[in-house]
Amino acid sequence: VLSALLNGRIVLDVQHALSVEERGFAYGHGVFETMALRDGRVRFLDDHFERLSEGCTRLKIPIPSTESLLSDVSQLLEKSKDGVIKLIVSRGSGGRGYRPEASLIVTRLALLYPKPPDQSGSISARWCNTRLARNSQLAGIKHLNRLEQVLAQSEWDDTAIGEGLMLDTEGEVVCGTSSNLFIVTSGVLSTPDLRFCGVRGIMRLQVLKAARCLGIEVEERALWPDDVESADELFVTNALRGIRSVVRLERREWPQSSIADRLSHALEAME
Amino acid sequence: VLSALLNGRIVLDVQHALSVEERGFAYGHGVFETMALRDGRVRFLDDHFERLSEGCTRLKIPIPSTESLLSDVSQLLEKSKDGVIKLIVSRGSGGRGYRPEASLIVTRLALLYPKPPDQSGSISARWCNTRLARNSQLAGIKHLNRLEQVLAQSEWDDTAIGEGLMLDTEGEVVCGTSSNLFIVTSGVLSTPDLRFCGVRGIMRLQVLKAARCLGIEVEERALWPDDVESADELFVTNALRGIRSVVRLERREWPQSSIADRLSHALEAME
Repeated sequence: VLSALLNGRIVLDVQHALSVEERGFAYGHGVFETMALRDGRVRFLDDHFERLSEGCTRLKIPIPSTESLLSDVSQLLEKSKDGVIKLIVSRGSGGRGYRPEASLIVTRLALLYPKPPDQSGSISARWCNTRLARNSQLAGIKHLNRLEQVLAQSEWDDTAIGEGLMLDTEGEVVCGTSSNLFIVTSGVLSTPDLRFCGVRGIMRLQVLKAARCLGIEVEERALWPDDVESADELFVTNALRGIRSVVRLERREWPQSSIADRLSHALEAME
Repeated sequence: VLSALLNGRIVLDVQHALSVEERGFAYGHGVFETMALRDGRVRFLDDHFERLSEGCTRLKIPIPSTESLLSDVSQLLEKSKDGVIKLIVSRGSGGRGYRPEASLIVTRLALLYPKPPDQSGSISARWCNTRLARNSQLAGIKHLNRLEQVLAQSEWDDTAIGEGLMLDTEGEVVCGTSSNLFIVTSGVLSTPDLRFCGVRGIMRLQVLKAARCLGIEVEERALWPDDVESADELFVTNALRGIRSVVRLERREWPQSSIADRLSHALEAME
């Protein structure tokens, strides 16, 4: 990490910063955002803040003020014009047991990372064995309970595989381990509706908006492995890596997605 | 917290101890144990260590040596003869993204808390609205992804309610927010089998052992709300609070559980 702010103040010793009683650590009671910093600007900042707020509301965490979040981002922008900013908001430090005292002060952590190596271009994917549990109460938000994603990514270490696709416990397709999934079938764009699990990705949102602008028919619906395997085109989306065609999934192959290319160009033009 | 050890060393500043990149914080990649310290001894220490090890194995976290864990406990025992010791083992600090580098050093945190106020005696309970998601891959172990328990406990603040009982997303009864549940029906003791979710409690294990010693018939099986509401006796178990009769659930009432009393006495005698 290049720089860290804890509740708005520069962290001098990043190895010794958080309380031993931090409830984000004890129970994962918090949310996070991972944002692309490009040319001195955070991409889709408003959408990230909006999802963060919704997550806080759903997890009964007081929402940090937009001023405080903007101030964190501004301070980190002074350090670098490109890179990644990760924001974590958690319930705060103190007490044992699942019930937080109402007086606890929320923990706001802002981390600056260097620009990751270029990860554009098409990828090969695999199906993961780790399943996502269904709980509509936690669906959509980017909370700190991410064991399923951690276990899913631990399933492979072949660097030729760029993403693992995940099913929920009933066998519905949900997402990639750190991306959302889109398929194109007979010209219609479809993506899982995430009513039971998965994160409503910020790039997923941009793709839905851009598709509507371009007049591409879009559906958010239940998808099953057969739908994916019989699709004409596949791609995954992530706030840092953008839109990436999936050209291989296990033994099936696809061409580079032409709709993904159109959407990428439209997104670059819209910003 | 009275005292804290991080990787075996006393923490001088408990408010500034953990790394900003701690993976237990970022993703909940870790496990914990909460153990009763009584008369200079940790109750059921071997069982706690065994569950901790199983959790590490299932979450692909290197298991801390028994020597290191025993050394932590001994150091805390020097500070107090009674209280609560909480152990947290997490994947360690470093990196962004769900995949930990293999070289990361595991974080071992041992916390000493004062003896909680006496919480024996019978309780009233309620049904929680928050459901537990089903994922057999995470069932049974005491991992750090505990948002469902946090949300369930936030549902009530009436101190007359001692526990909330939780269903899974399919409506099966699983446990209390921080306890396991037993019912007695026609002399047979039953408890949820936890095949999809819930934690295999250490006190639950002792109750199963004691019941077998006493010749009480025991079943681990699927339980539904009707089974609970039509039972002859109910009780919940927790490593710190022991065995507690549930004498009221919403509008239904029960007598103090006689089997719970027999089991409590047997457990005290067995130690």
